[in-house]
Amino acid sequence: MTLESSITEVSIKGNLEQFLIVLSVSLSVATVSRIFSWFRQIPYTLLLVIVGLGLAFVDIRLVNLSPELILEIFLPPLLFEAAWNIRWRSLKDSLVPVTLFAVVGVIISVLGMAWALSTFTSLSLATALLVGASLSATDPVSVVALFRELGASKRLTILMEGESLFNDGVAVVAFVLLVGIPLGIEAFSLPTTIVKFVTFVGIGLGIGSVIGFGISYLTQRFDLPLVEQSLTLVSAYGTYLATEELGGSGVIGVVTVGVILGNFGSRIGMNPRTRLLVSEFWEFLAFFVNSIVFLLIGDQINFASLNNNLDLILVAIAAVLITRAIVIFGLGNISNLISGVKTNWREQTVLWWGGLRGSVSIALALSVPAFLTGRQEIIDTVFGVVLFTLLVQGLSTKWLLESLNLIGDQALKQEYSELLARRTALKRVLEYLDITDNVYDIDPEFLRYQKGLVKGELQSIEDRISKMKREHDNLRSLSREQLKEQLLDIEADTYAELIRAGQLNENLSPVLQEIMVEADLT
Amino acid sequence: MTLESSITEVSIKGNLEQFLIVLSVSLSVATVSRIFSWFRQIPYTLLLVIVGLGLAFVDIRLVNLSPELILEIFLPPLLFEAAWNIRWRSLKDSLVPVTLFAVVGVIISVLGMAWALSTFTSLSLATALLVGASLSATDPVSVVALFRELGASKRLTILMEGESLFNDGVAVVAFVLLVGIPLGIEAFSLPTTIVKFVTFVGIGLGIGSVIGFGISYLTQRFDLPLVEQSLTLVSAYGTYLATEELGGSGVIGVVTVGVILGNFGSRIGMNPRTRLLVSEFWEFLAFFVNSIVFLLIGDQINFASLNNNLDLILVAIAAVLITRAIVIFGLGNISNLISGVKTNWREQTVLWWGGLRGSVSIALALSVPAFLTGRQEIIDTVFGVVLFTLLVQGLSTKWLLESLNLIGDQALKQEYSELLARRTALKRVLEYLDITDNVYDIDPEFLRYQKGLVKGELQSIEDRISKMKREHDNLRSLSREQLKEQLLDIEADTYAELIRAGQLNENLSPVLQEIMVEADLT
Repeated sequence: MTLESSITEVSIKGNLEQFLIVLSVSLSVATVSRIFSWFRQIPYTLLLVIVGLGLAFVDIRLVNLSPELILEIFLPPLLFEAAWNIRWRSLKDSLVPVTLFAVVGVIISVLGMAWALSTFTSLSLATALLVGASLSATDPVSVVALFRELGASKRLTILMEGESLFNDGVAVVAFVLLVGIPLGIEAFSLPTTIVKFVTFVGIGLGIGSVIGFGISYLTQRFDLPLVEQSLTLVSAYGTYLATEELGGSGVIGVVTVGVILGNFGSRIGMNPRTRLLVSEFWEFLAFFVNSIVFLLIGDQINFASLNNNLDLILVAIAAVLITRAIVIFGLGNISNLISGVKTNWREQTVLWWGGLRGSVSIALALSVPAFLTGRQEIIDTVFGVVLFTLLVQGLSTKWLLESLNLIGDQALKQEYSELLARRTALKRVLEYLDITDNVYDIDPEFLRYQKGLVKGELQSIEDRISKMKREHDNLRSLSREQLKEQLLDIEADTYAELIRAGQLNENLSPVLQEIMVEADLT
Repeated sequence: MTLESSITEVSIKGNLEQFLIVLSVSLSVATVSRIFSWFRQIPYTLLLVIVGLGLAFVDIRLVNLSPELILEIFLPPLLFEAAWNIRWRSLKDSLVPVTLFAVVGVIISVLGMAWALSTFTSLSLATALLVGASLSATDPVSVVALFRELGASKRLTILMEGESLFNDGVAVVAFVLLVGIPLGIEAFSLPTTIVKFVTFVGIGLGIGSVIGFGISYLTQRFDLPLVEQSLTLVSAYGTYLATEELGGSGVIGVVTVGVILGNFGSRIGMNPRTRLLVSEFWEFLAFFVNSIVFLLIGDQINFASLNNNLDLILVAIAAVLITRAIVIFGLGNISNLISGVKTNWREQTVLWWGGLRGSVSIALALSVPAFLTGRQEIIDTVFGVVLFTLLVQGLSTKWLLESLNLIGDQALKQEYSELLARRTALKRVLEYLDITDNVYDIDPEFLRYQKGLVKGELQSIEDRISKMKREHDNLRSLSREQLKEQLLDIEADTYAELIRAGQLNENLSPVLQEIMVEADLT
């Protein structure tokens, strides 16, 4: 007791200091990368990996990345945030390709990689299967950030995010099922594995749903922003732990609870302001955790050991690329045949090349039991592949998007929206300068000077807006689209608010229900 | 290494589970207390203590509260949040009484309690001094919440908050200086103690200022909300650890950095939206930490041990009340003579009775080294006094405020503001119902019904507003006051924004500087 608690205390202070150092480095990277515009071409997370690699190269190790830490502390918030923000309406349309990629895709990926590694290298089949399972979870953070920045289509983004959200769960379940084999605990048997798989996933879905809907209806009964915010945090970690405790997949549980709270609970149980608060809180938490994880991924690299297993890594990279090609092009075209959402070869190419691997792969590799022979090979192979995907694929995806002409007119729209925002802000400034005229006894000369300054700026912005409107016809339709979306949201919120206030019946008329579906409410 | 890391991993999962349980209990208390209105009379934190006591009574112990945990994990965010939110402009006016209470007051309190305990009980002087130091830190959370809710004067609130913010630091420094004496490490010498005290405080102020102004000017150079938000978190914990590491007072360091960032850095370096984000984040963090700490304070109670030391506790309670009476009435009247801020006897009575003790006292008592004789007596005495102040004084302060007629017309103002907010919200709903008319093909009958419903509600609110305005003349001046405050804020923000945007020189004209001072900017 005394020993343990004293060690825990030491480790609390030690961990705190280490994390502060990690965070300071990450924040410096974030700041520097925004100030020097050249760096802006590289996604923030990849920049962190590169800085981490640099630190590892000069042998500065910031913190020991244990699988427990990634899986229990870091993964739940990352998954919850992604699930909270995914729009069920959009996901529903792409459900066929997403399910194919996330379930059948992971099976193809595990088996393909295991076959390649056990055939062309010295790895045993059992060990190769573990490498395959670890590397079947894709990590969309950097690529999705790129999609958003460059304005790739929403469909592409949702495919990437949806696939990743669910293949994480499937890959983790596959890994857990497979890790028993090399330990000799059990022989592989297909029926048993399928039953286990279904049980894992089922318990995850079940507990996630119960907690998700439970909290949704609970928060409907009161309006306490701080409590509701805390509840999302408790539900993310609580679902993970409870599901794992009951023999299910924590990853699937967290994703389920996140999707339900983000799409259902946040609408029926939270007022718009609380919803915004919670979204901002999770955005911050995800930024925070990503800042730590990606820096540490780079910093964990052991170059010498990686070099020793270079043959394994090269075979694994080839296997990762080939199996993903089979999954995306093969299953993608099957999905084109049976579902309404079609992807063309250019989009498939980006999905293929943009399928990076990240923190989940690292965590799974590190969680291989220490006494298992081949553990170091698994870790090195996975780290090597993750680095390749992050650095080579990650840094070239932007170029690929541009070459394949998949970039929208996001930059233009962004500039236009910013000009509109500036105009509004400056008008507000002028208005308030007018009001203050009467309230305070400020030197009128100075106020006039101020106003002149603001008015001049405003005029030049008006000119630029008119010019853009003249030159780009589609900007008009952009405004119209934005207004429409906004109206839909506000209307749905109004009804939700009225239901909460008891002024509207919960059993909506079908017409109203349709509006709420339209506005993301189911 | 292996032992330590495996224990750490176990404790990570164990801690996480324990915290989730603690949080769930706290959130249940929060929820239930809002749903059943009777409970709303009791401040949330006191309710948590009571529930914690109940759990302790049936011997359910949620988590082991180590001093490390309170001092290093919980205290920095609580202090930072309080300091971030305190308005320097208001504090400056009350600087004389606050300084007297926080510095001279702590000295009187430590010496008075030590004399009483060593004279009337079996405690040695050295041990009694530690009890005195632990109990000299006041905890304003519950009382200030009550002040706000009931609408006590701003001056009273700022006195309570300001005193507590700084006497925490002084009490911790006093404790650290005194804890060496019973260990026999050093004999007591007044000059050495004063030098040490000044060093402790000076290092805290110095490092806090350097980090505070450094981050303020740093965030002025970029506009990255998530990075700036992270920086406040890093600065809170980082300042605490760095100051402690360099031999200063971490508490004073955190308070300094919080006051600077909240009053200076947030204005010159953050845009209004970021400032709001950061404030909301810290509000959440403080709620979160308080939810844990106060529940655990109750849950830590060992009734049997407390009962054994009842004589100590009773003497300590008397000493706490008497020394605080000397401090508040004595120093309060001295302050009345030499400063512009006057407090009358009724306000002084509330300051005296509302001086609760809380987490800092508990943390200090628990941090007494295990091998020191008298440790259990110190802990029991401090826990007993804390419980008395929280339960007896905490639950009767509301009654005292009402009896002394120190309650403003807050309830009325609250109701009025709420009605105004409702009116705005419903008008917005009507407007959007009008707009949606043209955009969507909704059954017009249903829309008319909707509109009728909202209009009826709006009319009844208008009627209530008119009635209130007729009956209470001061409500008109309330609106005017609020508008003036708002304008001042917006104007100052505009200038800050313009400075950031490079459209206004950083060296403001004296007239403008005055406006910004007025609006809390120095």
